[in-house]
Amino acid sequence: MRVAILAHEKFPAGAKTALGVLRYADYEAAAVLDRESAGRRVNDFVPDVQDAPIVKGMADLEADAVDTLLIGISPIGGEFDESWRDDVRTALESGCDVVSGLHYFLAEDEEFARLAAENDCELRDVRKPPEDLSVAEGVAGEVDAEVVLTVGTDCSVGKMTTTMELARAAEEAGHDAAVIPTGQTGIMIEGWGNPIDRVVSDFTAGAVEEMIVEKGDDHDYLFVEGQGCIVHPAYSAVTCGILHGSMPDKLVLCHNAGQEAIHGYESFALPDRRTYVDLYESLSAPVSGGEIVAGALNTSDLETDADARAAVEEYATEIDAPATDVIRFGAEDVLEAIVE
Amino acid sequence: MRVAILAHEKFPAGAKTALGVLRYADYEAAAVLDRESAGRRVNDFVPDVQDAPIVKGMADLEADAVDTLLIGISPIGGEFDESWRDDVRTALESGCDVVSGLHYFLAEDEEFARLAAENDCELRDVRKPPEDLSVAEGVAGEVDAEVVLTVGTDCSVGKMTTTMELARAAEEAGHDAAVIPTGQTGIMIEGWGNPIDRVVSDFTAGAVEEMIVEKGDDHDYLFVEGQGCIVHPAYSAVTCGILHGSMPDKLVLCHNAGQEAIHGYESFALPDRRTYVDLYESLSAPVSGGEIVAGALNTSDLETDADARAAVEEYATEIDAPATDVIRFGAEDVLEAIVE
Repeated sequence: MRVAILAHEKFPAGAKTALGVLRYADYEAAAVLDRESAGRRVNDFVPDVQDAPIVKGMADLEADAVDTLLIGISPIGGEFDESWRDDVRTALESGCDVVSGLHYFLAEDEEFARLAAENDCELRDVRKPPEDLSVAEGVAGEVDAEVVLTVGTDCSVGKMTTTMELARAAEEAGHDAAVIPTGQTGIMIEGWGNPIDRVVSDFTAGAVEEMIVEKGDDHDYLFVEGQGCIVHPAYSAVTCGILHGSMPDKLVLCHNAGQEAIHGYESFALPDRRTYVDLYESLSAPVSGGEIVAGALNTSDLETDADARAAVEEYATEIDAPATDVIRFGAEDVLEAIVE
Repeated sequence: MRVAILAHEKFPAGAKTALGVLRYADYEAAAVLDRESAGRRVNDFVPDVQDAPIVKGMADLEADAVDTLLIGISPIGGEFDESWRDDVRTALESGCDVVSGLHYFLAEDEEFARLAAENDCELRDVRKPPEDLSVAEGVAGEVDAEVVLTVGTDCSVGKMTTTMELARAAEEAGHDAAVIPTGQTGIMIEGWGNPIDRVVSDFTAGAVEEMIVEKGDDHDYLFVEGQGCIVHPAYSAVTCGILHGSMPDKLVLCHNAGQEAIHGYESFALPDRRTYVDLYESLSAPVSGGEIVAGALNTSDLETDADARAAVEEYATEIDAPATDVIRFGAEDVLEAIVE
C-alpha cells in the first residue's frame, strides 16, 4: 500500500499519527502533505523514520502515485479542517481510499460519500466503532498468550510507541508477538482494531476483550496499546476499562521525564511514580493480577544521553523495575523482564 | 403521572428499576406487570413501598388506567425481550407513553416507532445520552456543594437506594440536598440525568461533571448515584469515570452482606472490604481526595434484625467507618458522618 499522509502545518511535532505511521507501519510513504514545509523531506526533521518528500497537497502528486490518503493529524475535538477538503477531494477523484481517525466521520460527509461512490473508493473512519460490541464476559485471561499492557502517568507519554517497540523487539528476539491497537494511530498502523475511546462506556472492557480473544490463541505475546491514565480527570474511564478488559499479566509504566502535572489539567499534580505502581497493581490484582515489570521513560526533552541515562536509572529505582527509553536506548534493555 | 411497571418473571428480586420507582418516584403506580405473580400485590412481596396490584399484562388494565408504561427490568446486556412486545404494543395503542432504560432503543424499533407516531405517544429511551456531551474539564471540584458519591463492592449492592435514602434523610434533617442520577433507575425516578453507562467512553467523566456543574452551586449537598464497581471485569470503566468526573469529597461504600464473588462473574472473588476502602481512596486521592466516611450494607438476605445488626457492626469495623442498612435501619445512623 502506497500512502500519502496529510499533516498540514503540524509536521512533525503536532502530527503524532503521521509520525507513528512513518515509524511503524508497513506502508510505503509516497509523500507527507504539509503546505508549510513543502519542498523538504521527512528525514530533514526526523532522521530515524521512513523518509518521504513533503509536498503542498495531493495535486502535486502523480495521479497513480498513491493508493490511500491517511489523515495524519487530529486537532483538539477531532474536527475536520475545511482547508483539507481539496486534498480529500483530489484523492477520491483519482481513486484513492481515504483513512481518517477524526471524530468527524468522512463517510458521513455528503460530498466525500458521493465522490467515494463515483470513484469506487473506500472512506474508512477508524474512530467509528463496530456495531456489534458488547459487555465484557471476563474471559480475556483465558487466552494462551501472555498479555502485556502499557499504562501511563498521563496521556501522550509514549504508550503507543512503547507498545510498538516492545512488539518489534520481541519478534526480533524470535517470539511470536502481536499488537492489540486501541487508538487511532495504532489502528492506522496495524490496519485493524477497536477505537476504545469512542465505544459506549459500558462496552469499554468488552471492546478490548473481543480483540484479546480474537488474537490470544494465535500468538505467544500480545502487546496491548494502553490509553490515558488511571488518575486523569477526564480519561481514566478508558484506562480502567482497558486494564480490566485486557486482563494483562504484565504492565509497562510509561512516563515523560520531568513531567509534574497532568497535561492540559495543570492543577492536578502527578502522584509520585511509586504511587502509580501501587495504583495500577492494586487495581489489577482482583481481576488479572498484572504487575509492573518494566518502565518506559520518554527522555526526548533531555539533551544529552548521559542525562537521559541518569533519568532512566532514577526512574527504574522509583518503580523498582528495569527501565529504558525505547526510542533513545531501544526496547531490548527491558525485554527480558517481559518475555521469558 | 399514573404508571404501569413491566417486571415480567422478575418481581421483586430481579426488578431493581421497578422497585426503585415504587420506593422513590412521585408517580402513582397503577399496576406492576408480572405474568408469574399476577393476582397478588406489590405489598405481598415488599411491604415498605407503594402498593399496587400485579397483573398479567397491559391487556388486563382499563384503557385509561395509566398514562405511561415503564420498563422496570433490565436483562444482562439490556436487550428487549420479545415476550414483552404485546405489552408495549397494547400500551402504545391505548395512547400510553413508554419509558425504557434498555440498551435496545424502543424509538428505533420500527413497529413501536410507527405505533407511537400513529397514537401520538412518546417513546423515551432514558439510556440514550444527549448529543452534546464532551470530555471533562476537571472542574467538578469547584462547585459550592459537598459531593457525596456511593461506590460499591459490585453492581447491584444498593448504590442507587443508598443515594436516595441519604438525600431524603439529609433533606429531612433540614439540609438542601439533590440527587445526581447516573443510571436508568435514578433517571426514571428523578426525571432527568445522563445515562453514564451509555455515553462515549471518552466522555464518561465529562457527562457526570456536566451534571455536577449544573446543580452544584444550588445545593449544599449533592448525592451522586454511583455505578458498577472499581474491580468489576466488565463495568469498572464507568465506575472510574464517575469517581473522577464527580470529584467527590466523601464516599459511601455499599455492599451486600455475605456476598463473596462478582455477580455473574463468579470466578472473580470480591477483595476484602478494607481493600475496597484503600482502592477507592487511593484512586480518588490525586483527583479529589474523596474518603470513605460511611458504609451501607444490604442485609435483606439476613432473617433477623439481630443478625443484621451484627453484620452491620462487623462491616463498620472492617471499613473503619459508621455503617447501617439504609432500608432496614434507616440512613440516620450514618448521616452525621456525611452532613455536618
